[in-house]
Amino acid sequence: MKKINTLSVDLGDRSYPIFIGEGLLASSELLAPHIHGDQLFIVTNEVIAPLYLDHLVKKLSLRHTVETLILPDGEIYKNLEVLNTLFDALLSKKFNRSSTLIALGGGVVGDMTGFAAACYLRGVNFIQIPTSLLAQVDSSVGGKTAVNHNLGKNMIGAFYQPECVMVDISLLETLPDREFRAGLAEVIKYGLIADVEFFCWIEKNIEQLLVRDSNALCTAIEKSCSNKAKIVSRDECENDIRAILNLGHTFGHAIETFFSYKSWLHGEAISVGMTMAAKLSSELGLIELADYVRIKELLARCDLPVSKPDEMTAETFLELMSVDKKVIDGNLRLVLLESIGKALVTSNIERDILIKVLQ
Amino acid sequence: MKKINTLSVDLGDRSYPIFIGEGLLASSELLAPHIHGDQLFIVTNEVIAPLYLDHLVKKLSLRHTVETLILPDGEIYKNLEVLNTLFDALLSKKFNRSSTLIALGGGVVGDMTGFAAACYLRGVNFIQIPTSLLAQVDSSVGGKTAVNHNLGKNMIGAFYQPECVMVDISLLETLPDREFRAGLAEVIKYGLIADVEFFCWIEKNIEQLLVRDSNALCTAIEKSCSNKAKIVSRDECENDIRAILNLGHTFGHAIETFFSYKSWLHGEAISVGMTMAAKLSSELGLIELADYVRIKELLARCDLPVSKPDEMTAETFLELMSVDKKVIDGNLRLVLLESIGKALVTSNIERDILIKVLQ
Repeated sequence: MKKINTLSVDLGDRSYPIFIGEGLLASSELLAPHIHGDQLFIVTNEVIAPLYLDHLVKKLSLRHTVETLILPDGEIYKNLEVLNTLFDALLSKKFNRSSTLIALGGGVVGDMTGFAAACYLRGVNFIQIPTSLLAQVDSSVGGKTAVNHNLGKNMIGAFYQPECVMVDISLLETLPDREFRAGLAEVIKYGLIADVEFFCWIEKNIEQLLVRDSNALCTAIEKSCSNKAKIVSRDECENDIRAILNLGHTFGHAIETFFSYKSWLHGEAISVGMTMAAKLSSELGLIELADYVRIKELLARCDLPVSKPDEMTAETFLELMSVDKKVIDGNLRLVLLESIGKALVTSNIERDILIKVLQ
Repeated sequence: MKKINTLSVDLGDRSYPIFIGEGLLASSELLAPHIHGDQLFIVTNEVIAPLYLDHLVKKLSLRHTVETLILPDGEIYKNLEVLNTLFDALLSKKFNRSSTLIALGGGVVGDMTGFAAACYLRGVNFIQIPTSLLAQVDSSVGGKTAVNHNLGKNMIGAFYQPECVMVDISLLETLPDREFRAGLAEVIKYGLIADVEFFCWIEKNIEQLLVRDSNALCTAIEKSCSNKAKIVSRDECENDIRAILNLGHTFGHAIETFFSYKSWLHGEAISVGMTMAAKLSSELGLIELADYVRIKELLARCDLPVSKPDEMTAETFLELMSVDKKVIDGNLRLVLLESIGKALVTSNIERDILIKVLQ
């Protein structure tokens, strides 16, 4: 077996490991210590199932009773109605409290499986096997689970930590290019909010990343996960520092909600959102104009969108952003940059400057 | 103001007080330290609303923005679909992370409001103001929240603790007699599982309780809540001792599920369930036949049902009980009595004896 890098999310008795490496799906023994009962329920989607499901089921069936559920693919299915089909399946197959759910898929599968695990019989174990770059560097780590509501993204959910996260970089081989690039937006985010050296490294290595060079990918994923693990360990339930992980997300969620979770990928919306946050930071004199340009250029080199959809006005943004989870007592709070590698959360934003950026 | 008794549920940083007394609804200043943000959302039902809602809204509106939602009354409405109407209301009114939900009602309102609070924006504060005897002695304390699924009761939920519980005994004045008696089943439960002295006290004071003598009620509610608080403090998430709180519930949930949460009240089903558990304990030689008779007689004195519905066979029970949350790796676990005042959880039950009792 090739080298496996193990990171840790330190949360007391809810701590868990992140395994990162190539070909890990073949080494199901990594999962064994994290499966407690006999019953396993693997949730995946119609795109991932034909690629990897049989292989995983075969491995795990040697020791466990395995059932599977294949969801339709896409953010529009991340809702309470589809979540209920998970509960239907779990109950009709009589899954009990000691069973383990496994999320084999991208952010949508991970968020829904995690939330189902949080609620089913008031909580059962679950394991994340993320298959998209975005899920591997971001959504599978940290215990944020949720479904969308037609009035806002990720509005119904729970903080609920997995037993372990298994990041198999080999799974990215089958990831469509557009989704891969969308995942890079979150990779770039970690450089922006917490790690200037990593940001510079991405700038230097962007071509290798875009051709999915496995060494470059390994480094990018490890750096992203270790930055995320550090932040989550300090503030599990986003009372404080964890909010910086949402750089660009308040703007981005508004875009996703406006398009009803169709047409725009999460990473694409976040790319526009981060550009807006950088622009706003520059307008407020927090960062240099040159830094804003540098950020925008790196995102553009990934073929990610860096300007707002024509269909959306400043008013549309303000209306959709007003239900954001970071709003406290009517005050919109935004994550901004005070330098590349350092983020801050603020609610002191002059409306005129905000509207200027939104236009 | 009359005397207020304050109990505490000790759960580290999730500890909270239970206030018990008469006329507490008039003293909203008790709640003030437990409301953190500006926005309050009161959930109640169509029976309670005309009796108490205006009064509470008036008191709380002095200092807060108050919105209300009136749910239909009854266990059949405790489902994901109705839960979603809470989320609709919260989102359309732009309730934020620092808002507080208040459950003004019985077990159904409390369970749904608590679960909504657990999931809305991944968790907001909530307060319990239970209005039924059953909710005052049982469901409002301990943080179990849930909705039903058509394949089983309380299958989707969370352990999520309130900021405080306000038990106003005066609210019981308007409680219909059938519901009051159903609540007594849970009061008797505490005597059976943990407090033989309390059981004897109930036997002696049953007539005063049935006429709702306020001194007798105060004692019964305080004893019930303090027994529950002690057990919950030892085992918040039911990994162990907390399971004894489910005496009679595995049988009882089967009855409720069989009748689709119509026609039988929870306490009535639990009364039959506790009779069955006592009978089974006696058949297994754990308690004397005389103890079983004594338990059955006390329940019968409350006009509670003590024998199974004619429509249900032993097979129906076994099938419905097999999805119970206390099933672990295929083994049905039941709460039984080893004496009046002492319960145990066991999975070593001979099928023949179980079937005999179910017949």
